Amino acid sequence: MAITGRTRLFCVLGDPIVQAQAPALLNPLLDRLGVDAVLVPVHAPADRLDAIVAGLKPIANLDGMLVTIPHKLPMCAHADELSDTAALLGSTNALRREPDGHWYADNFDGAGFVDGLAAEGHQWTGRVVALAGAGGAGLAMAAALMAAGAGRIDVADPDTQRLTAFLTRLEPRWPGRVLAACGPPAPDTAIAVNATPLGLRPADPLPFEPARLPSATLVADIIMRPAETRLLRAATALGLPTHPGIHMLRHQLPLYQEFFRLPATPAD
Amino acid sequence: MAITGRTRLFCVLGDPIVQAQAPALLNPLLDRLGVDAVLVPVHAPADRLDAIVAGLKPIANLDGMLVTIPHKLPMCAHADELSDTAALLGSTNALRREPDGHWYADNFDGAGFVDGLAAEGHQWTGRVVALAGAGGAGLAMAAALMAAGAGRIDVADPDTQRLTAFLTRLEPRWPGRVLAACGPPAPDTAIAVNATPLGLRPADPLPFEPARLPSATLVADIIMRPAETRLLRAATALGLPTHPGIHMLRHQLPLYQEFFRLPATPAD
Repeated sequence: MAITGRTRLFCVLGDPIVQAQAPALLNPLLDRLGVDAVLVPVHAPADRLDAIVAGLKPIANLDGMLVTIPHKLPMCAHADELSDTAALLGSTNALRREPDGHWYADNFDGAGFVDGLAAEGHQWTGRVVALAGAGGAGLAMAAALMAAGAGRIDVADPDTQRLTAFLTRLEPRWPGRVLAACGPPAPDTAIAVNATPLGLRPADPLPFEPARLPSATLVADIIMRPAETRLLRAATALGLPTHPGIHMLRHQLPLYQEFFRLPATPAD
Repeated sequence: MAITGRTRLFCVLGDPIVQAQAPALLNPLLDRLGVDAVLVPVHAPADRLDAIVAGLKPIANLDGMLVTIPHKLPMCAHADELSDTAALLGSTNALRREPDGHWYADNFDGAGFVDGLAAEGHQWTGRVVALAGAGGAGLAMAAALMAAGAGRIDVADPDTQRLTAFLTRLEPRWPGRVLAACGPPAPDTAIAVNATPLGLRPADPLPFEPARLPSATLVADIIMRPAETRLLRAATALGLPTHPGIHMLRHQLPLYQEFFRLPATPAD
């Protein structure tokens, strides 16, 4: 659809922004839906985020913002209202302007991940998930998995402050079922998830050692580029099933579609 | 070209913005040039312009801004450096980020108008131009016509403050050749230009009476929608040649192309 003066705007905020997948996924969806709107990448340097958001919010044809690293936490302070999920996580990846003008923030990272697992036929109900990385992405996935019926999260992170913050957020909601993992993976681990940035660069060490996982453990990665990380290659070589990062974002599309009140997808 | 995280940004600022023609003209040009960039409309309510621009300038992948009504004057205060034309006019319709990060403002309305006249084979050198409207657009056209060798500008505007401001800006640069016009058009008028908003709405009165013009006077309009204004229809009915508003914008495209340091147009 051609951009004109009537075109509505969405943006995705990040620093850097070149790696953002949302424009390449959302714009074709807007086209398919016949929505005269465009999603543009906004490179918001971290030290200028406040001024940039204060300038974006009054733009009258801006209907929503997506948020990527490193802005998911600070963007909560720019929302007028947080969803339960965004409040629990202390992070948002999507904000919309409400009809009365206030900005409402939610977070779909975890729901996208869980919907992606479901779409691929994977099981998590009552199972143990080993999670590497207690940052924002790990937190989102853990909360969504627990909310969707997972049995237990064993989370590992070398940053003890981050690990403690993670436990402090989730343990009260699911007492005794969100545990710090220090040793080898539990023998009843069903899914092992990488929620660290390790794997973005070819020389990165593995976030965990797939050879130590129980056989048939699903190995999932949140990294989207490369599509097949060293971790997933190693898991495949061991005969373990894998789940690449792109699923998490792909399965956020219908959630964004609803969140931004876009029309339903036309039947083909 | 598909929008991705690597896409660079341009915007056009206005209030309202739905009428802006720049997105529909510039985006196809960017495509043709193979430039991975997009120009989006930004509806900047007048009372929020300062905050919006303060938020846009730090966006690291924003390379330039176009400006339309009513922001062309106030945007000068947001530039770090003004071209001679922007300084003379006190208004800008295009700003770019320089390699060292400062924002440079220019104004191509007048040059686009003059280039449009030239492309259509019209003559103005040494001739008298009757101008209706002493606002920003009229000022830009008058300065460009004089800089390009017009003989004299006879300008009319019922707002005496606006008229005086116009004369105060241009008279010192071209002494005795920019005159307030109170009576009927001079008998040596070669071009009569509407630079007022009259004609945007079907019920608007004519900005001037084409029947009073010397025969063969070129009647030009800056209004782009409708493409044929009541003024142009009346002129055509009298057998006068006409020049519609779209030329002014179309002929700004090569000027923007150079200003924003876009690659040269590939030979077809």
